[in-house]
Amino acid sequence: MKCRKCGGKGVINLRQHRLILCKDHFLEWMPEQVQRAIEKYHMFTPQERVLVAVSGGKDSLSLWDILTRLGYRADGLYIGLGIDGGVDYSQESLRLAEQFAQAHALKLHTFKVTEAYGLTVPEIAQRTHHGQTKPCSVCGRIKRHIMNRTAREAGYDVLATGHNLDDEAAVLFGNTLNWAAGYLVRQGPVLEADIPGVVRKVKPLCRIYEREMTAYAILRGIEYIYDECPFAVGASSIYYKELLNRLETDRPGAKLNFYLTFLQAKKAGLFSASADQGRQNLHSCPNCGQPTSVDGECAFCRMMARVKSKPA
Amino acid sequence: MKCRKCGGKGVINLRQHRLILCKDHFLEWMPEQVQRAIEKYHMFTPQERVLVAVSGGKDSLSLWDILTRLGYRADGLYIGLGIDGGVDYSQESLRLAEQFAQAHALKLHTFKVTEAYGLTVPEIAQRTHHGQTKPCSVCGRIKRHIMNRTAREAGYDVLATGHNLDDEAAVLFGNTLNWAAGYLVRQGPVLEADIPGVVRKVKPLCRIYEREMTAYAILRGIEYIYDECPFAVGASSIYYKELLNRLETDRPGAKLNFYLTFLQAKKAGLFSASADQGRQNLHSCPNCGQPTSVDGECAFCRMMARVKSKPA
Repeated sequence: MKCRKCGGKGVINLRQHRLILCKDHFLEWMPEQVQRAIEKYHMFTPQERVLVAVSGGKDSLSLWDILTRLGYRADGLYIGLGIDGGVDYSQESLRLAEQFAQAHALKLHTFKVTEAYGLTVPEIAQRTHHGQTKPCSVCGRIKRHIMNRTAREAGYDVLATGHNLDDEAAVLFGNTLNWAAGYLVRQGPVLEADIPGVVRKVKPLCRIYEREMTAYAILRGIEYIYDECPFAVGASSIYYKELLNRLETDRPGAKLNFYLTFLQAKKAGLFSASADQGRQNLHSCPNCGQPTSVDGECAFCRMMARVKSKPA
Repeated sequence: MKCRKCGGKGVINLRQHRLILCKDHFLEWMPEQVQRAIEKYHMFTPQERVLVAVSGGKDSLSLWDILTRLGYRADGLYIGLGIDGGVDYSQESLRLAEQFAQAHALKLHTFKVTEAYGLTVPEIAQRTHHGQTKPCSVCGRIKRHIMNRTAREAGYDVLATGHNLDDEAAVLFGNTLNWAAGYLVRQGPVLEADIPGVVRKVKPLCRIYEREMTAYAILRGIEYIYDECPFAVGASSIYYKELLNRLETDRPGAKLNFYLTFLQAKKAGLFSASADQGRQNLHSCPNCGQPTSVDGECAFCRMMARVKSKPA
C-alpha cells in the first residue's frame, strides 16, 4: 500500500476516492477537503468569527484543529452536561477540551449545566419527561439552546459542529425510513440564520467519513474521549450507522453517494416549498428571545420552568 | 400460536400487524387486504376490465387468484421471453400459467417474443447491448411495451402487476440511495393513464409482504415456479431486499412503514411539481403509437430496428 502522491508508506485507503495516502499527505488532504466543503456550501469566510461546539470527542476537536490550521478565527464552546456513566464522561471530556485549547492557545467558552441550573441533564430529563428512559431529546434541546445563545451573546457569526458523514448519513437514513418531510427539507451542511435570533449553523465535516476522522485525530496526536456517551447505547442513529456501514463495505462510496445525491436533488428542487412549513410562523420567545413555533414561551423555557416548580 | 379470530391453529404470524391467523382466516384476510388497497388507491372498479401480467411466479398467479375471488373481470397475459437457464425457465412458467388458467376457466393471452421477433430476449439484448452482461434492462423495456400494447389492443382498462411490498420497498430503497428524483416522484401503487396511448398500471399487492404472498400461494395450493429468473442473481434489487429484511427482522413493520410513509409524504406534497418533468413533453412514437420522450421512434422500436438490421 503506497501513497499515490509520494510513493511512501500508505496509512489509509480512501476506497470511495480510490486514494491511498501516507501520513503527511493524509494530514494535508484533510484540511483541503474541509476547505472545499466550507467554500462549496458557503459556510463562512476568513473574516467571520466561528464558534466550534467542542465535546472532547475526535470529530469536534479535529474540526477545531483543522479550522485553526486553515487560519479561521475559531473559538470553542464546551457544554458540561453532568453525564457520568462509569467513565466520568463529562469530567473527562472537559479535561480533554481544555487541554487542547491550552496546547494551541485557543479560547474555550465553558458552560456547565449543573452550575447554571443546579441539576444535571439526566436529572432535568427525569423531572420533565417521566416515562422516557433516555435523556437524549432533553439533552439535544438544552445543547441547541445554549449553543445558539452563547454564539449570539458572544457575537459569533456562525456555529460549527463536528457532524461527520456517518452522522449525517445516519440522520438522513432515519428521516428517509419515515419520510419525515420537515426534517428532510431542512437537513444540510448549512442551516441559515434566516430567522431573527438564530445563528447560522454549519457542518464542515459533513463529507468526511468517521473512520477518516478517527485516523486524523490519531495521526495528529489529538487526545480525545473514546467512549460514546453512555446513553447512546441502543440509539437508532448507531443502528443506522451499522446498516450503512454494511452497505459501504459492499459498495464503497455508497454512503457518500447517498448524502451527496440527496443534497444535489434538494438543490435541483426535488422538494416542494410547502414541505418546509416548520420554519414559517416562528416568533421570539418572550423569555429568552430565541425563536419558537409555539405560542408563548419556547420549549426550552417551559421545560426549565417545570424543573424549577418541582421539588427535588 | 393461536389464530386471533377463532383460536384455531395459527399458521402465520403477521408481526407488523401483531396478528396470528389460521389457514382459513389468513386466506380470508388476504383478499380483504387487496380489496382495501384497490379502493384506497382507486385502482379499478368491478366494471373495468383488468389484464394481469402473469409470469408463473407466486405473486402474479396469486394476484390473479385473488382478483378472481373478489369478483373482478381479470384476464391474464403471459409473455414468453425465451429465457431458459438450467431450469427451462420460460417453458415451465408458461406451463404453470396455462395450468392455472385452465383450472379456473380463465382467459390467458400469450405472447412469445421468440415467435414474434425470431429471437429470445437474451439474444436481442446481446445484439443491441454488447458490453452488458445481463439482459434485464432490455427485458424490462420489451415487457413494458408488450404489456401496454396488448392491454390497449385488447381493450383492457387497466394492467395489474404482482409487485409486492418487498419489490416496491426495494425499488424505493434503490431510488432513495441515489435520490433519483424522476423515479421517486412517479413511484406508487398506480401509474395513471395520463398520456395518450398508455394504459393505467396498478400494483394491488404493494402492501403485502413477500412472505405473505408465498404463504398464500402455498396454502391455496397454487403451483408456481420457485426459481428466480437466472439473470436475477446478483441484482441490486435482491441486495436491497436482503438489507431491508435485516431491518424488518430488527424492527417489525419497518419495511411497510418505509413504503407507506413515502406514499403519505408524497400525497401531502413533499415533492415539487417541477421534479416530475419526465412525463412532460411526451409524444407518440410514429411507428408503434406508444408514448416516448425522445424525438422520432421510441426506444423499443429503435432497438428492434437495430436487431433486424444486424445479421444473426
